[in-house]
Amino acid sequence: MSPALQRDIAKTNRTFEEAVTSGDMSALDAVYTVDARILPPGAAMVSGRENIKQFWQAAIAGLNVGSIQLETVDFTLSGDTGYEIGRATLNFATDGVPPMIAKYVVVWKQEDGAWKWHVDIWNPNA
Amino acid sequence: MSPALQRDIAKTNRTFEEAVTSGDMSALDAVYTVDARILPPGAAMVSGRENIKQFWQAAIAGLNVGSIQLETVDFTLSGDTGYEIGRATLNFATDGVPPMIAKYVVVWKQEDGAWKWHVDIWNPNA
Repeated sequence: MSPALQRDIAKTNRTFEEAVTSGDMSALDAVYTVDARILPPGAAMVSGRENIKQFWQAAIAGLNVGSIQLETVDFTLSGDTGYEIGRATLNFATDGVPPMIAKYVVVWKQEDGAWKWHVDIWNPNA
Repeated sequence: MSPALQRDIAKTNRTFEEAVTSGDMSALDAVYTVDARILPPGAAMVSGRENIKQFWQAAIAGLNVGSIQLETVDFTLSGDTGYEIGRATLNFATDGVPPMIAKYVVVWKQEDGAWKWHVDIWNPNA
């Protein structure tokens, strides 16, 4: 992975983390492609960025998520897409609730010159 | 997706289904690349085909899985890889246990001229 690509990937991931902390879902325009799909555990697939923004807004409020950290374990570029294996740590804003460790696969795609999440699936480690 | 690719993808998926029904994990040599990784819900990532075979052997026995059906929802070719979004139905051999519906993302890669699963992650719909 080139330093430029590494920087682009990290920028998008940091934008997601900031959106979760701030609760400002409009920031997800810079994270997901317009026709992205997410596959959340315990729910059906959600298609389209606007529906994905609604999903995250409800999930963050429902679970009382305080912050999230994403760590790229592996990124492979292939053609005009790439796929990432990563590790996520969810920190809850509720006292006494321990962080949740999850792992994820994201298929990345360029949209308007920026690398974004095109397919996003995750599950908890425990 | 070309008819030839569609046939290759379906063949690998049918091989997985047959391996689950028969319990013969050696068939997974034709399903996973040698350095494949799986990301199962409730467990850490498992790396390498031999470890993956052990995972499935234990999971099929532990959950008393009778059969599995895979349905490709979407397949996108990109460079020398492809990614699939799919739906899986797990049928249990225990009386009265209802089937489990899951969704998955598989990153495909060619190995020895055959299309195989290189990264495999899934989670339950409910």
